[in-house]
Amino acid sequence: MVGPATGRIVVTSRIVVLGGGFGGMYAARALKRRLGRAAEIELVNAENYFVFQPLLPEVGAGSITPAHAVSPLRFLLRDVFVRKATVDSVDFDRRLVTVFQGVQRRPTEIGYDHLVIALGQAADLSKMPGLEEHALTMRTLEDARRLRAHVIGQLEHAQITRLPEVKRGALTFCVVGGGFSGIETAGEMKDLIDRSLKFYPDIDPSEVRMIVVEFADRILGEMSQGLADYATRTLRERGIEVKLGTGVASATGTQLVTTTGEVIDTRTIVATIGNAPSPVVRRMGLPSERGRISVDRTLAVKGRSDVWALGDCALIALKDAPQGPRDYAPPTAQFAVREAEQLAENIASTLTGGTPQPFDYRSKGALASLGARKGVAQVFGLELKGFPAWLLWRFYYLAFLPGLTTRIFVLLNWFMDGISPRSVVQLHTRSVPPTRYVRYRAGDVIYEAGNRSDGFYTVVTGAVEMTRTDPETGLPQVRTIGPGGHFGERLILGATRRQTSVRAAEDTKVLVMDREEFLKLADSFQAFRDYFGPYMARHGMTWPPLGETDGQAAPKPVPTEKD
Amino acid sequence: MVGPATGRIVVTSRIVVLGGGFGGMYAARALKRRLGRAAEIELVNAENYFVFQPLLPEVGAGSITPAHAVSPLRFLLRDVFVRKATVDSVDFDRRLVTVFQGVQRRPTEIGYDHLVIALGQAADLSKMPGLEEHALTMRTLEDARRLRAHVIGQLEHAQITRLPEVKRGALTFCVVGGGFSGIETAGEMKDLIDRSLKFYPDIDPSEVRMIVVEFADRILGEMSQGLADYATRTLRERGIEVKLGTGVASATGTQLVTTTGEVIDTRTIVATIGNAPSPVVRRMGLPSERGRISVDRTLAVKGRSDVWALGDCALIALKDAPQGPRDYAPPTAQFAVREAEQLAENIASTLTGGTPQPFDYRSKGALASLGARKGVAQVFGLELKGFPAWLLWRFYYLAFLPGLTTRIFVLLNWFMDGISPRSVVQLHTRSVPPTRYVRYRAGDVIYEAGNRSDGFYTVVTGAVEMTRTDPETGLPQVRTIGPGGHFGERLILGATRRQTSVRAAEDTKVLVMDREEFLKLADSFQAFRDYFGPYMARHGMTWPPLGETDGQAAPKPVPTEKD
Repeated sequence: MVGPATGRIVVTSRIVVLGGGFGGMYAARALKRRLGRAAEIELVNAENYFVFQPLLPEVGAGSITPAHAVSPLRFLLRDVFVRKATVDSVDFDRRLVTVFQGVQRRPTEIGYDHLVIALGQAADLSKMPGLEEHALTMRTLEDARRLRAHVIGQLEHAQITRLPEVKRGALTFCVVGGGFSGIETAGEMKDLIDRSLKFYPDIDPSEVRMIVVEFADRILGEMSQGLADYATRTLRERGIEVKLGTGVASATGTQLVTTTGEVIDTRTIVATIGNAPSPVVRRMGLPSERGRISVDRTLAVKGRSDVWALGDCALIALKDAPQGPRDYAPPTAQFAVREAEQLAENIASTLTGGTPQPFDYRSKGALASLGARKGVAQVFGLELKGFPAWLLWRFYYLAFLPGLTTRIFVLLNWFMDGISPRSVVQLHTRSVPPTRYVRYRAGDVIYEAGNRSDGFYTVVTGAVEMTRTDPETGLPQVRTIGPGGHFGERLILGATRRQTSVRAAEDTKVLVMDREEFLKLADSFQAFRDYFGPYMARHGMTWPPLGETDGQAAPKPVPTEKD
Repeated sequence: MVGPATGRIVVTSRIVVLGGGFGGMYAARALKRRLGRAAEIELVNAENYFVFQPLLPEVGAGSITPAHAVSPLRFLLRDVFVRKATVDSVDFDRRLVTVFQGVQRRPTEIGYDHLVIALGQAADLSKMPGLEEHALTMRTLEDARRLRAHVIGQLEHAQITRLPEVKRGALTFCVVGGGFSGIETAGEMKDLIDRSLKFYPDIDPSEVRMIVVEFADRILGEMSQGLADYATRTLRERGIEVKLGTGVASATGTQLVTTTGEVIDTRTIVATIGNAPSPVVRRMGLPSERGRISVDRTLAVKGRSDVWALGDCALIALKDAPQGPRDYAPPTAQFAVREAEQLAENIASTLTGGTPQPFDYRSKGALASLGARKGVAQVFGLELKGFPAWLLWRFYYLAFLPGLTTRIFVLLNWFMDGISPRSVVQLHTRSVPPTRYVRYRAGDVIYEAGNRSDGFYTVVTGAVEMTRTDPETGLPQVRTIGPGGHFGERLILGATRRQTSVRAAEDTKVLVMDREEFLKLADSFQAFRDYFGPYMARHGMTWPPLGETDGQAAPKPVPTEKD
């Protein structure tokens, strides 16, 4: 709150920053530096650390330990109040942000005088059937950890499987999108695999396929055509297939179908496309354009003087009358950091009765790593390729990293990675929720007789064909079930192996519940028991009374008394 | 397979080792060293890495990065076939092990001539109500990672909560069990907290409680009384409460009740007790005693000449006529490694027509770290305390670590930890499954009106009291529901906040399904829809037809047409 037109801050202002990425973290820092004790700065972020996004592909490839690619926000923001919480909503009239802290269910309200929104963007993969269900993403630190565990899991599986089609799928890695994130992810992933193969003697290097699909007719759209051509050649020389003019038509857990009609057997799809506003930003109902919050050139949200936005969630014009996409700030770290400076200056001006200034900045260049110590760089109009560009990439980002400790750790990681083998430890990170949607293409096997009974399935769209050998006649019995039907419930009888084979009769989406999840419901939710009771009775079984299996994760069905 | 009584191995023998801990990994190594090309050695383990258990407390406290406390089995066992798979069953007559590989549902059969079982032990916490549901454990690398994330999560929460009782619970940490694992975990956890508090300005050091509860009247039962007393004093000087003669009566998500009747508000219970045979070992049906496989003194399983067992899963007598517990090999790494040597020698003898020898080894001593650079050691009859013992601890384990790279990394971790602040990055590791059992004590609040609608609850045992303010009369309406009843289902109507307050009317166990999990079932499982349909209709809502919310994680209930 500001004293009446004295130009002096008489009461401490509360400035709340939502989001701890490049935009939010640097804004909080710059605000604290400018305002000192004249303002209380609070930063709200879902995680308690700042992620240095450009290093995520290296975390995904194991050259940097996850904890070393990030810095605790509390290290970086010593005099800022950091709150680890998720933002639920904002009441702009009452100037209140509602958040949820930790596992807490009780909402917490935070008041503000000025609000800074820096919540980034989310991924929306729902446009391509199956991509949301089956693709990995590369936005968060968790994503990077998951990718590394997943890739090593594929090598482990390829090493020991006896089925050629499984081996082929396990050793085919697809990256969707040929921007910075996609290219760097493909390059680093290839490094990880190339360096790890010596530990997997039954995998021949020629069996590994790494594929980048890009819908445009070139990769690295932000760089010159010459550098993009060089990058494409370099990737291809390293054995990475670059498919231009190619998008994703659909995906399953074992296949990717391209818009050109190609069907690729793969168990790894990394989607680096599909930007969308984050749900909480959408719920705020602020004026927006192309999925981003509309701000004026001072970074104030249109129509408000106490709400500001920057970074990927904001649409920031670089000219008063923007013509095309090039007249808006691109969603890069470089820009976000500059926006943060301008925003802090503008809030400080506002508090002291000054006039906010428009944001104005030109890109100083762009850098991309291609893996295997090669890169491309475009800096101050100069172009670099190969090893020098890669070295520049590393040193630029090292200098850019906030926090001395993090810088030392990253340097140490790089040094150790240069002199020691890449570890193939597959840390467990659960990549699929226990209840999830799965897509199949017509003809896909869902499971076969003799397989492990690992879950309960219900058909959402499409249809499946179930085949079973009649135990009396020895003849096959076939039955088709469509939406609303379910299969695999034999596991409530204590079954551990399937007796039936199931395949998708058409393109099908199912909901799968893992065995343990399903058995917990069967054990403890009365409606479930009532529904499956007749089925159990037909098999001469019944459940013990509710609560008697207390302490057990799985129910122990018992034969009915008549049995 | 061995040629007829020639003493020469004429056909390659297949030896399969189940388990990659100290027993299994060292057995596979020793077998390869002794038998070379004369035998095919295969090791099956659920993870692709070897865990150096003694370092887990340090991983839990963040002084060692998780990936650095383990070594890939493929690094350590170069000429051994390593199979990342879970063991399902063994057919001892057909000499076949059935395993499941990766996400594969198809069983894989592995033949053997000799089988080595080194599957360790599992935890069984089911004897104390609530411990299984609410305690963390410290057996696996995942456990250690989860503990670190959990502890930092508590500091984050304590820093920002406005509720004194929540702060108290968040800052009280309980360790159950005063053996090596419990003591080292408590000591290291205290280190982590002490070193991190400078980043949490709103937490006063006096608000932190660290409590060890041990049922016996002393800690570190394997060491001398003098060292145990020193350790107890040292821990107490460091502000760690050691409660002797105290066990766990029951536990919930917010409280631990001791056998002495004390109720401790805590959100962190680490259980280091409760050894039990692993389920797969139990299913094998081998002769067993006190939950461990019975072996003769040559480590052959009683009654079989081609099946061997060692490590924590085996009961290994050190004398021909064992009298008490001290006449059996203790479940320590030191013993497992020696057992592995003897076992490899005995299998080699068997293959060459020789005579297996009995296992015979005396402990060389024991070491425990107490955190804060103090320890206790008992080596070759000598006793050490304080810093020298701690230093010995570190160097002994460093020397003991298999693999040069791991040794270098651990040393580097220790060095960096000595000169830089402990990182408070809270990496996300999901500690609770989306569908889980939760216990409440009579009177506990389950949720209150205005709270976030975060899940669906069904009562398994006990009863809950639901209180709601009638919107018309303004009077409270109270309703009690018991086993089989459920609450919280308003979230299928799109509710985001509770209208009702629920508390446990007696000691109660509920099954909770997270919002997202529940909504997936409501969206896609017809029996669920049928069951909740009338409830929705009463609220003037209905679901879109099955499959129409394709691609959506959550259903969008719509008003019924009549509405």
